[in-house]
Amino acid sequence: MTEIATQLPEIDTHYRGPLLAMEASFLAHQKEIEAWFRQSWIKTPPPFYASVDLRNAGYKLAPVDTNLFPAGFNNLNPAFTPMCVQALQAAFEHVCPMARGALLIPERHTRNLFYLESVAALAELFELAGFDVRVGSLDAAPGEIDRRILPSGRELSLHPIERHGDRLMADGFSPCAIVLNNDLSGGIPPILDNIEQTIIPPMALGWWNRRKSVHFSHYQDITHEFAERIGIDSWLLNPLFADCGEIDFLKREGEDCLAEQVERLLTQIAEKYTEHGIDQEPFVVVKADSGTYGMGVMTARSAADVIGLNRKQRTRMTASKEGLSISRVIIQEGVHSFETMSRDHHVAEPVIYMIDRYVIGGFYRVHTERDVDENLNAPGAHFVPMSFAESCVTPNATMGPDACPNRLYAYGVVARLALLAAAREVADVTATGRIA
Amino acid sequence: MTEIATQLPEIDTHYRGPLLAMEASFLAHQKEIEAWFRQSWIKTPPPFYASVDLRNAGYKLAPVDTNLFPAGFNNLNPAFTPMCVQALQAAFEHVCPMARGALLIPERHTRNLFYLESVAALAELFELAGFDVRVGSLDAAPGEIDRRILPSGRELSLHPIERHGDRLMADGFSPCAIVLNNDLSGGIPPILDNIEQTIIPPMALGWWNRRKSVHFSHYQDITHEFAERIGIDSWLLNPLFADCGEIDFLKREGEDCLAEQVERLLTQIAEKYTEHGIDQEPFVVVKADSGTYGMGVMTARSAADVIGLNRKQRTRMTASKEGLSISRVIIQEGVHSFETMSRDHHVAEPVIYMIDRYVIGGFYRVHTERDVDENLNAPGAHFVPMSFAESCVTPNATMGPDACPNRLYAYGVVARLALLAAAREVADVTATGRIA
Repeated sequence: MTEIATQLPEIDTHYRGPLLAMEASFLAHQKEIEAWFRQSWIKTPPPFYASVDLRNAGYKLAPVDTNLFPAGFNNLNPAFTPMCVQALQAAFEHVCPMARGALLIPERHTRNLFYLESVAALAELFELAGFDVRVGSLDAAPGEIDRRILPSGRELSLHPIERHGDRLMADGFSPCAIVLNNDLSGGIPPILDNIEQTIIPPMALGWWNRRKSVHFSHYQDITHEFAERIGIDSWLLNPLFADCGEIDFLKREGEDCLAEQVERLLTQIAEKYTEHGIDQEPFVVVKADSGTYGMGVMTARSAADVIGLNRKQRTRMTASKEGLSISRVIIQEGVHSFETMSRDHHVAEPVIYMIDRYVIGGFYRVHTERDVDENLNAPGAHFVPMSFAESCVTPNATMGPDACPNRLYAYGVVARLALLAAAREVADVTATGRIA
Repeated sequence: MTEIATQLPEIDTHYRGPLLAMEASFLAHQKEIEAWFRQSWIKTPPPFYASVDLRNAGYKLAPVDTNLFPAGFNNLNPAFTPMCVQALQAAFEHVCPMARGALLIPERHTRNLFYLESVAALAELFELAGFDVRVGSLDAAPGEIDRRILPSGRELSLHPIERHGDRLMADGFSPCAIVLNNDLSGGIPPILDNIEQTIIPPMALGWWNRRKSVHFSHYQDITHEFAERIGIDSWLLNPLFADCGEIDFLKREGEDCLAEQVERLLTQIAEKYTEHGIDQEPFVVVKADSGTYGMGVMTARSAADVIGLNRKQRTRMTASKEGLSISRVIIQEGVHSFETMSRDHHVAEPVIYMIDRYVIGGFYRVHTERDVDENLNAPGAHFVPMSFAESCVTPNATMGPDACPNRLYAYGVVARLALLAAAREVADVTATGRIA
């Protein structure tokens, strides 16, 4: 059973003021914000689906990761299943209106039961929305069907994918839409190359090609425009970042450039802290510019932190999912996570889910072992998901700006700003065939 | 507070079998049904919004009225507000994508507090969906704003509508979309004639022009096609009907034709009853071919019932809303309502709401004074609305065909068949400028 967060996490009282001001501003401009999003989606249609990891420092609310092949659908509040169904129907209407069914392709080597629960939950949503669905495995040998009963009781069958000419098929089923839930960290598998079926989302959005620095560059432009409209400093929504070309941690190439950029970014953050009266120590996060799963992530509080790494640390920064070695890194302003669950003071990080342009819910990733300035999405990280009790689309002007529906509305707004950045990435790959 | 129907009404056990079979068939064909609806909406886009009154006789589940200017939004389960918000956003995307706001025009002479609650609830949904909204009154004198606090605590301001050239304005607000919640029984008010703003739904769908016989003729075609696909007799979904041109009850013109048609229809129904083993007495409902509110409605069990009406009865059949005198009638197969609320055995009639193509919920109109073969939507009729506890979009194949989510799914399917008939009416008026 999914646990529901009946109470919002608490924000360190010291920093609640700026958050309240931001939430109040979102509420006051709600109709303008929605009209602006509507016009934005006409210009740049949203991706099929996405999840956004947010960090709420009270003085700042910002996305730190935007996932275009989201997992975690099993962690959403079942009360909002009808919204997901409706959103999926709208999403297919936009990308593949004649689709009767879809072949869902998840990550390879899927022994992670939490992930399999998410795949099964997603497949269930497709069925509820009235689409025939098969889950196809990139690993399974011909004829070898992997049938599982998951801990939740959900059933999941992974069928081997067959290629017939330029069409994919699984379990004798060859639908017009292929939905990827695989972030293609290892590149485009040959079996997916030059397929005549519609592949959703476009494969060029996989991590073999996508770059966080491009995403956050779009995000920065968007928050500048947005913040000006509603009269706030865009920094309150935007994590500063820098990148510095190719880095080879093992050969220690690019280390000086990295140290310099870290230093510069820390100085910029410190200036912002002074401007906004924040008495925290700035930190940055150094991570792979492409990739996910929190591998190769490092926190730095000074340039010295990235110089003279020992062999183990350097090897860790080089390792990434599916052996993709890190060659580019992004240095991102660290955003403290000052939301804590009141009952045990564990750090909580909101994760927001969207299908098409619709915010369909989310959950708190409640971390039981980590501190406020640590990455909460790490391999083996122990977290408990707590579904949002309310939707993110029903702000209530008669309640306080930090009341549950209003804080969740604010999360939905910031998540959609990141979604819009992803929409611009989609437009880039649609226009050029690859991300610029 | 809205009361929620935590238990489904009971169906007379004698007739539960056919209903179970139909529900099971809908469940078994769910994906085919949804794919068919999706393709249908591409050919004929749905109207902006609608409500459908259903009657469930156990052996038969059919719409008896499709309202394209629905009231009753205050009776929906607040748990589904996020779905309504999402559906409204999709609806505007389809009919007026650049709209930033809407002017909502309700019925005239709106002293009915239940109706005003619905208007206020609808305006609230528009606001939640991120649209600026004003409610404009066709009655108010210039400068005269009618502000009310309704029993629910909702506030409603009715602003006088001003016309400037070919644009309407209210409260200094002149949005690009005018949303009608006025069924135009009395014709198109001059102030609405030749407006440059987009009027939603098209005014040609008002009762001054729309005809039930046209709606049910489309509905008949649709159910023939649909029933064939899922292998059931279309009569199980389709109320038989007849019309016989102009009738003047006061002058007793057309009475013979009416009696003849009533006789013929009763015979057809009796044949169907024999075919399906139903031991009920057939009845028909004679009602105005255009109009609403249950005025001018008569039940007949034999041709004699419509011959030799006394003056009072004839006057009643002539009176209709806004003085629209009845000239055409539709004779419709009466469908018994065999759903009764178990606690007090009151007759319950489901009313299903749709925005765009999405079923957003509904309620039972629980009647406290009427019998199973009576019209439950009559002026002064005393009914208690009981909101559906669950959505109509999450059928559950692991539960019995008559379990709550599955019966509500069946209601949503039949309501959408009526919605599709209305979509064909929209296509007719779009193509020809008036309903054929």
